[in-house]
Amino acid sequence: MAENGPAPGKTALIIIDMLSRLGFDEGEAMRPAAEAAARRIAALRQRADAAGVPTVYVNDNNGHWHSERSQLVAACLEPESRGAGMARLLEPRNHDYFVIKPKFSGFYATNLPVVLPQMGVNRLILTGIAADICVLFTAADAHMRDYGLWVPGDAVASHDEQRKDWALEIMAHSMDADTRPTDELTLADWIAQGEEVGRSSAEWVVSGR
Amino acid sequence: MAENGPAPGKTALIIIDMLSRLGFDEGEAMRPAAEAAARRIAALRQRADAAGVPTVYVNDNNGHWHSERSQLVAACLEPESRGAGMARLLEPRNHDYFVIKPKFSGFYATNLPVVLPQMGVNRLILTGIAADICVLFTAADAHMRDYGLWVPGDAVASHDEQRKDWALEIMAHSMDADTRPTDELTLADWIAQGEEVGRSSAEWVVSGR
Amino acid sequence: MAENGPAPGKTALIIIDMLSRLGFDEGEAMRPAAEAAARRIAALRQRADAAGVPTVYVNDNNGHWHSERSQLVAACLEPESRGAGMARLLEPRNHDYFVIKPKFSGFYATNLPVVLPQMGVNRLILTGIAADICVLFTAADAHMRDYGLWVPGDAVASHDEQRKDWALEIMAHSMDADTRPTDELTLADWIAQGEEVGRSSAEWVVSGR
Amino acid sequence: MAENGPAPGKTALIIIDMLSRLGFDEGEAMRPAAEAAARRIAALRQRADAAGVPTVYVNDNNGHWHSERSQLVAACLEPESRGAGMARLLEPRNHDYFVIKPKFSGFYATNLPVVLPQMGVNRLILTGIAADICVLFTAADAHMRDYGLWVPGDAVASHDEQRKDWALEIMAHSMDADTRPTDELTLADWIAQGEEVGRSSAEWVVSGR
Repeated sequence: MAENGPAPGKTALIIIDMLSRLGFDEGEAMRPAAEAAARRIAALRQRADAAGVPTVYVNDNNGHWHSERSQLVAACLEPESRGAGMARLLEPRNHDYFVIKPKFSGFYATNLPVVLPQMGVNRLILTGIAADICVLFTAADAHMRDYGLWVPGDAVASHDEQRKDWALEIMAHSMDADTRPTDELTLADWIAQGEEVGRSSAEWVVSGR
Repeated sequence: MAENGPAPGKTALIIIDMLSRLGFDEGEAMRPAAEAAARRIAALRQRADAAGVPTVYVNDNNGHWHSERSQLVAACLEPESRGAGMARLLEPRNHDYFVIKPKFSGFYATNLPVVLPQMGVNRLILTGIAADICVLFTAADAHMRDYGLWVPGDAVASHDEQRKDWALEIMAHSMDADTRPTDELTLADWIAQGEEVGRSSAEWVVSGR
Repeated sequence: MAENGPAPGKTALIIIDMLSRLGFDEGEAMRPAAEAAARRIAALRQRADAAGVPTVYVNDNNGHWHSERSQLVAACLEPESRGAGMARLLEPRNHDYFVIKPKFSGFYATNLPVVLPQMGVNRLILTGIAADICVLFTAADAHMRDYGLWVPGDAVASHDEQRKDWALEIMAHSMDADTRPTDELTLADWIAQGEEVGRSSAEWVVSGR
Repeated sequence: MAENGPAPGKTALIIIDMLSRLGFDEGEAMRPAAEAAARRIAALRQRADAAGVPTVYVNDNNGHWHSERSQLVAACLEPESRGAGMARLLEPRNHDYFVIKPKFSGFYATNLPVVLPQMGVNRLILTGIAADICVLFTAADAHMRDYGLWVPGDAVASHDEQRKDWALEIMAHSMDADTRPTDELTLADWIAQGEEVGRSSAEWVVSGR
């Protein structure tokens, strides 16, 4: 972190499974909530860019081990894809990180456990779908690895509104996540919180771990 | 599995964090529910013994890296321990497996990922405390590793009855767990279910993986 | 998989770090040995295709988290890349698997631990560079996860011929690897060996795991 | 840890598989070398105690999941155990850490990945048997996780002197290990080296991770 300025690199914005054709059974029913979350995430990503906070896509490849990022995005953008709207809002840029996740948690059998420490990141903003499945599994694994968590309640979505709320309650209580929506907690406030924590732990390291 | 008989070894009974002094803040409030769960687990363990289903304790050591199983159990049995009642009901026997778990999930940084395959186990009965923390984290990791799950609703406990119910709903929906209590699903029925699954996957292996 | 025929999918051909610009200090000195290995691997890949054995690239991305497979390959093919010869021989095809490896072992923080079981693979042919670093680390992790190993001595390379031989000795002794070169052990013989093993373990599963 | 003084806790002494009955085929042949290593390790442990460096046993349980540390040690101390001499020299004390390792590497399916960071340790002295198997596998995993390594050549043993030397060469070259024997590098010097590194990385953290 710069001696006087902010330490934006310590936080990363994680976008989970938003590049999707929503081809599963509940996909059509889930679409409006997922698109609303996509708009919040797009706004958050813009503020993250301005603050120097990196964005990391952590996305299923739906078993297409042979394809690569550009093909995966192209498939989501096709007119007949239910996820085309989301993909247009959140198309990854060249400078974004992109990690393939073969199972539910972003930490299970992925590059993430190496990428995040290399980036110097210890606090995560988790966004995406589904709140009660992949976001929840990822939050559990992140908490176990001591990452600070913000899971903005309006930047995640689920097929079932009630299970989304239950998942948020559990992430707040069992995984120490802040779950305030983006109109109650700003990115700037979240970063400022991290500064405080960062300051005390830097002192601790110097005085003699 | 024997050609005609049951294959009891394919299921294991997992007992999570029931050897505890309940020394944390909510411990006293949680005690009645935890002791009720302990009675169900003790009954289940007895039936597991009879059916040849192995029992695996997966337990916190509360940071006491220097002590061992017998010392950990002795500390729980002390009269001033809030967990003495639970420990009396569920004291591990010599033939039980015992795995130290340093974080919330039974699979994270433990021997479990090696022990279970060595036992030939692919279905788990998850019991213990807390339903919305360590049981939930363990269920998530088990589901990601393709274990079949039964989380009997009356053999888990939580400080908060509502969060326990939410956690059970999420384990049922997101982790494919059967959450029926032990008076609705018997161990015998659970084992019989596994026989069916076992039969089809054995055929599959022979015909040519 | 054919009901009566062989089960070739049980073996996978792993190609480690052969898509490289050899941009490191010892790269130029290593080039002739690496290119000789590339020719052996290309021949092996052709036989693997014919036998239905899948090919999996496990490759460093040299910290370029933002690029993807096609860009990585293009960078290796550039005229000024020391690895252009290797890349021309071993350019991945659309149907090949491709896994990014952030550290030395192909199993550490990668998709491999999920991809291989999904493919039904339990035997690996390890090829690539360097024999005494990434191939060795990957062999250790594969052996620990019970994969059968063939590390053909003429399909791996190292900067130092002596350390390559030592690494092969250690892989043979400590990781149970067959290290015979491709002119002493054919792919057909390796597959036939697996058939034998496969037969006995299938019997074992049916008769009573 | 003292505010001005050294931070000896940053190093840990790891003792691998020295609690053993040497019951395997090559056990008797390996005994003299293993006992010589045990004497070096005992001396090193004494110096580690004096310097405040913690000792961590990382040991196989030979599949005895039901027994615990005291039983494991007792079995090694029995008169008919080939490992009785080693066990007498290296019997663990109450304040030593003790981690069960189910496979070759001390990091695979063990508590070690959580215990070491909790101890604030980032440099390891690896000792024990066998140099070309469990010590080598553990060194590979430690290097991948960025631990600094000292593998004193006279505090490890192998059945085969030549393979031990090859393994040491590979640990030196591929895992950045210092392999000088304990009469060429003292614990005090090793700790002093870490001080230097610690100082620069503390500065680095403060001035701007």
